[in-house]
Amino acid sequence: MNIDAVLERVDRETGASLKQLKEYLRIPSISTDPAYTGEVRRCAGFVEKRLRAAGLDTEIVETAGHPLVYGEWLGAPGRPTVLFYGHYDVQPVDPLDEWRHDPFEPTVETGRRGERIVARGATDDKGQSFTHIKAVEALMLETGSLPVNVKFLIEGEEECGGEAIEAYVRSPAAERLGCDLALVSDTSMYGPGQPSVLYGLKGLLYTEVRVRGAARDLHSGTFGGAVANPLNALATMLARLRDPEDGRILIPGFYDDVRPLAAGERSAFAALPFDETKYGEEIGATALWGEAGYTTLERVWARPTCDVNGIWGGYQGPGAKTVIANRAGAKVSMRLVPDQEPDRIFRALAEHLRASAPPGIEVEVDHLNGAPPVLVDLEGPLVDAALMGVEEAWGRAPVRVREGGSIPIVSTLSGVLAAPVLLIGFGLSDDRLHAPNEKMDLVNFYQGIRTIVRVLDRVGSVDPGA
Amino acid sequence: MNIDAVLERVDRETGASLKQLKEYLRIPSISTDPAYTGEVRRCAGFVEKRLRAAGLDTEIVETAGHPLVYGEWLGAPGRPTVLFYGHYDVQPVDPLDEWRHDPFEPTVETGRRGERIVARGATDDKGQSFTHIKAVEALMLETGSLPVNVKFLIEGEEECGGEAIEAYVRSPAAERLGCDLALVSDTSMYGPGQPSVLYGLKGLLYTEVRVRGAARDLHSGTFGGAVANPLNALATMLARLRDPEDGRILIPGFYDDVRPLAAGERSAFAALPFDETKYGEEIGATALWGEAGYTTLERVWARPTCDVNGIWGGYQGPGAKTVIANRAGAKVSMRLVPDQEPDRIFRALAEHLRASAPPGIEVEVDHLNGAPPVLVDLEGPLVDAALMGVEEAWGRAPVRVREGGSIPIVSTLSGVLAAPVLLIGFGLSDDRLHAPNEKMDLVNFYQGIRTIVRVLDRVGSVDPGA
Repeated sequence: MNIDAVLERVDRETGASLKQLKEYLRIPSISTDPAYTGEVRRCAGFVEKRLRAAGLDTEIVETAGHPLVYGEWLGAPGRPTVLFYGHYDVQPVDPLDEWRHDPFEPTVETGRRGERIVARGATDDKGQSFTHIKAVEALMLETGSLPVNVKFLIEGEEECGGEAIEAYVRSPAAERLGCDLALVSDTSMYGPGQPSVLYGLKGLLYTEVRVRGAARDLHSGTFGGAVANPLNALATMLARLRDPEDGRILIPGFYDDVRPLAAGERSAFAALPFDETKYGEEIGATALWGEAGYTTLERVWARPTCDVNGIWGGYQGPGAKTVIANRAGAKVSMRLVPDQEPDRIFRALAEHLRASAPPGIEVEVDHLNGAPPVLVDLEGPLVDAALMGVEEAWGRAPVRVREGGSIPIVSTLSGVLAAPVLLIGFGLSDDRLHAPNEKMDLVNFYQGIRTIVRVLDRVGSVDPGA
Repeated sequence: MNIDAVLERVDRETGASLKQLKEYLRIPSISTDPAYTGEVRRCAGFVEKRLRAAGLDTEIVETAGHPLVYGEWLGAPGRPTVLFYGHYDVQPVDPLDEWRHDPFEPTVETGRRGERIVARGATDDKGQSFTHIKAVEALMLETGSLPVNVKFLIEGEEECGGEAIEAYVRSPAAERLGCDLALVSDTSMYGPGQPSVLYGLKGLLYTEVRVRGAARDLHSGTFGGAVANPLNALATMLARLRDPEDGRILIPGFYDDVRPLAAGERSAFAALPFDETKYGEEIGATALWGEAGYTTLERVWARPTCDVNGIWGGYQGPGAKTVIANRAGAKVSMRLVPDQEPDRIFRALAEHLRASAPPGIEVEVDHLNGAPPVLVDLEGPLVDAALMGVEEAWGRAPVRVREGGSIPIVSTLSGVLAAPVLLIGFGLSDDRLHAPNEKMDLVNFYQGIRTIVRVLDRVGSVDPGA
């Protein structure tokens, strides 16, 4: 295969690629808003059309919600199979008045790092996942075939829960998704010009805690001192989740299944450029603080956390009301790391909270969301080949990063597929995803296409049975 | 003085007294609602008219808010002077649909303890303080004079902050309030047929605590672990206010000025009939809980307390939002006992909260309300005489009780007047004050008049200079 010819084609056709991306971005595929259901379906149709133009067999997979788009080309028997995941739906656009123009009228602007396209979905995830389709198309048009078998699974509910794809991937129909490697581009690079492979995502446990005392609100003068106050009790229960001195989580057994950070991983993190002062300034924090014995990057990427995300109870208005409210509640979530299991942690949390309640306080703990943590084993010839392709495209080796957030579908894919899931992002931390004036640097859009071409070229040279 | 003749007159004129009380209760003197400002003034006029009918010189004292009604009869030189305090304003009436009839159409119903009058203000405080006026009137009409000098100060803002009377009592004009004994009837008896003298009220310190972290809300995945979470921090700060095991308040120096419960006081409390099970059932609490080493009555009446009255921060809606909110807050109040000073406790509280905050969390503490505690010294010939009058009226000695609530004007009067303030209530705990279908048992209304007649008779026999 003449890869140079393919890359030349990519470069020659940037205008057409940009034009198609704009067409994609013009479709307001806001999945969470029922008013846009028709537009979401129209967007699925656009994706299917582009997959077909790239030479794939396609199918719109109907679900209980928004449709999935599936595509495949299996004309390389004996060669590795690569599964691409992406999503064609986007976040809502409010606050609309903070946009410089219509969020669905994609506009090329010149920023400090060159041209960028500004629109809802520019980076999350239309721009990023479109690089996969354009790379496959360039290979196909230039060479008449692909160096690997490819499958695409592109969903329309990533921004509103992702229930359809979760059900699909866990159903018998998902047998067709078998692959040797999965690729996702829905994250950011470590910095401009610095490609990254994201190999660790935290799991999530999200709960709601409710406490209840007397049958009704009580006057704090008449009854103060006689009964446990649900708000004081809740504060005590929440305070007991973490040691206020060293930041350790105090739930019994919480750390039992935490895989310790390997020395090699710690030194790799330490080698990354990271400016604590700048990091604090960017979020307006006067001090950073976390679990003792770990750096900020280690805390965020690789150590479990526990945050109260919301709390309520009693009188919240102006002035004074002398009340002992009879109920209060809080949202409590945890980011988990391998090998913590959300369900097991939930049971330990609920038991710990109940044990911390004083007499007369009833405690209810609801499990709202859970996702297991993911740690991709970046070993083996296929992974090596893919990362070599990334390095060739950027002229520097990708750094290996982890991330404090959770992408539930990655956990699911990682569990269901017996294959590594590589997250190779082309976004940047200033892309304003979910915010007004979301953008993607065009250099990263085009580099993304080139990267995928090189990755598929390299992966195609590996014997998957070896 | 022929006290029997006076009491016969009281009994003979119950019909007229009830009729006048109904007239009083028909005036919707809701002080907190500007729509009723005219009615509040009309009510002041009614009170003034009744004081004049009792033979007193009167004055409507204008204030920045609702007027005060002042009355005096100083025709007994060399005799003690008694100051009566009460209030003619009432609480709002909502929820209106829970009333059995118009709250301002007083209705006599038959309850399990006999006849009662149902209307807003029946017990709080029109019915109770009207006993003072009717007693003075009966004495005056029957004997042509009074056994003591009397002064009345009746306010119209007790239910909406009481600012006018506070300012008045602290102004030079208050010199006219000089007295040997003050009497207030705005509380409840310990039980039906059991007269009580309330000699201790708690003080109050009411604050608002606000915490702030980063400059904006943060994603709990991207930033979890890197910064102190304001909601976790607030929970920790609030949890550190009280020992969750023994219920002691942990603010350094908090107990320094607490006057210990005297052995005699503890045994007096213990001698009162008090059913913990029934008490818990009435408020729907599955368990009572409080400071170790004290009974429920001691905790409520005589030990300082600390309650979180409200708390807020972050996401309070349904489902999950993975946010680290950048601010949170709480209302925190304390009921204080002699000799704690609200301002000193405030400083200790604020310092303790600040010291409990982790790095990166800014803390603000606002002082919203404060009132010093009151403990009336139930000693001396005037007090003895008054309590003897109460005993004669009821056929049993009044029990000495304290109360967990705060009545700021009592603190103020107690501080400004160099005289004991006796709180002799004629209400009952089931009078539903501040609630729909507020009532007063008629037996207590009439007994209240008789009680005040006997109290004034007894007090009049004491030489105030002795």
